[in-house]
Amino acid sequence: MALVAGTTRTARIDGISAAGADADLRDHTPSADAELLAYGRPVYAPAVPVSPTGCPTPALVTRAVRELVGFEATTVDAGLAEPTAAPTVGVGADPGGDIREPGPVPGAAEIIEKSIKIGKILSDSNILVGETVPGGTTTALGVLAALGDRFGVSSSLPENPVALKAEVVEAGLAASDLAPGDAAGRPVVAVREMGDPVLAAAFGLARGAIDAGVRVTLAGGTQMLAVAGLLRHAGVDAPLTVATTSYVADDDTAEVRAAADAFDVDLAVTDPGFGGADHPVARYARGEAKEGAGMGGALMRAEREGVPMAAVRERVRTLYGEVVDGA
Amino acid sequence: MALVAGTTRTARIDGISAAGADADLRDHTPSADAELLAYGRPVYAPAVPVSPTGCPTPALVTRAVRELVGFEATTVDAGLAEPTAAPTVGVGADPGGDIREPGPVPGAAEIIEKSIKIGKILSDSNILVGETVPGGTTTALGVLAALGDRFGVSSSLPENPVALKAEVVEAGLAASDLAPGDAAGRPVVAVREMGDPVLAAAFGLARGAIDAGVRVTLAGGTQMLAVAGLLRHAGVDAPLTVATTSYVADDDTAEVRAAADAFDVDLAVTDPGFGGADHPVARYARGEAKEGAGMGGALMRAEREGVPMAAVRERVRTLYGEVVDGA
Repeated sequence: MALVAGTTRTARIDGISAAGADADLRDHTPSADAELLAYGRPVYAPAVPVSPTGCPTPALVTRAVRELVGFEATTVDAGLAEPTAAPTVGVGADPGGDIREPGPVPGAAEIIEKSIKIGKILSDSNILVGETVPGGTTTALGVLAALGDRFGVSSSLPENPVALKAEVVEAGLAASDLAPGDAAGRPVVAVREMGDPVLAAAFGLARGAIDAGVRVTLAGGTQMLAVAGLLRHAGVDAPLTVATTSYVADDDTAEVRAAADAFDVDLAVTDPGFGGADHPVARYARGEAKEGAGMGGALMRAEREGVPMAAVRERVRTLYGEVVDGA
Repeated sequence: MALVAGTTRTARIDGISAAGADADLRDHTPSADAELLAYGRPVYAPAVPVSPTGCPTPALVTRAVRELVGFEATTVDAGLAEPTAAPTVGVGADPGGDIREPGPVPGAAEIIEKSIKIGKILSDSNILVGETVPGGTTTALGVLAALGDRFGVSSSLPENPVALKAEVVEAGLAASDLAPGDAAGRPVVAVREMGDPVLAAAFGLARGAIDAGVRVTLAGGTQMLAVAGLLRHAGVDAPLTVATTSYVADDDTAEVRAAADAFDVDLAVTDPGFGGADHPVARYARGEAKEGAGMGGALMRAEREGVPMAAVRERVRTLYGEVVDGA
């Protein structure tokens, strides 16, 4: 798994993201997620990321599956804002700007070029590409709008702030002097003007891996559908799978299946069954967090390896006890 | 293996280092070494590092052993000056300054603190700590002088520029307002005023691993003896091994055994037998490169795993053909 981790100033907009207890902690979320994936606990990060209500980061679930299944994982630094102790591969990315201003990812072309090289060299016979970037569904909506494929995106909040996202994207298109669809067939422009560095790097990685003949699974929700859109607009016609959670797939505010159809993507949906538990992870079933840090891809991996979801839930509870309660 | 990779402006002094064909390429050497170790070939780096006469970097040997033996490897970014495609762990380090100016490693305390955390978390049952930093034997001499243990250091050049190094260290002590031995018992001061960020990080990593109960082998030559000195001056009395090549151990200009005795270090010396070959690596036996990028530790590992040195030489020649001749 390549976890593409970065930040965008778009996440600073009030009410846009639940990927962190507050705006300052949200800057730490991708760095902390990378540490969780690599080591199973925060090292430099102040704490395990939780939502404002205490729902733990999906990286905890990805790590739990990793402990059960044992897949290799590398983090790509696609604009981290805070230090991480996890090993990271650099692709020349800085934190992304607010999409309401012109050119939030001025280095998009370089990030993509470097990520293509990394995608070619990292790749085994198959690769999962995941993401962690607070505010990432809003930038995904921005990219989809620029491409002219404006499917509704999901949210880490139980109440998707749909109107706010639409407003932010309108402001972004205006600031970049783009009409919807103006970046059709021009993925670099779409990411540079309306995206974030994580979308740039995930697109490049997937493209490089596909060029090297590797089977790519995009592990995530509507952000990964935006990456699929970028690949299609770049003329890539290789088979693509997006592996996500039931919490994203069941989100009525997101047009997951319509986007998957439009981009000719196989959808693999896994339900970890967190709902019944008397535990903070039960909030996933009430629409919090939903997905991220490769969670959907990790769950798919667990299912394919025959690891029962009960074992995943058990490992998540144990990890939570060690690194959230125990901290 | 943790490969601690960084740079110091001290390497820009004319005639001080052969770790790169010229001063500009020397800035790329640690980044390229990390790529070789991780992937077996340069990715972002312009070429495989060679000395001015074409002798290949010791990282090629470390990689060859890794392909034969299969050990895990992580690079620590201890002040890289150029991008690397290898996964790196950050410890908050910037490139080091010229030791002839005051405070060449102003962030030494933070680098050490973070590296201790990394040493604790990276560690398995045992760890090899290697280094790649052009100019590193001169900064090692500087640190040894500051500690008051002025043993002669080795060189990547066939003719060790002993007088030049002594002159640079004198200028450094004067600039830092230190007499030899003034930093005895104060390893942070020794590194901050006379060292480089790689020595800071290697010291911290080793200390963290030892604190976690892990057996540490310092893989390298006189730079690693300087790290052992820093550990002893910090009051660490755990057993320490320095694993190096016969090319360093046989260097009459370096006081390898005297330093090992003084710091109560076990010396493990391995001879890869490069001398007989009609190949650029034969230059090792004529005193070029000699060691670096964990080469001595990797060779020790090969020996302990029963891999014949003939197989190592064969793999080195194959790799050289692929990534130097073939490039």
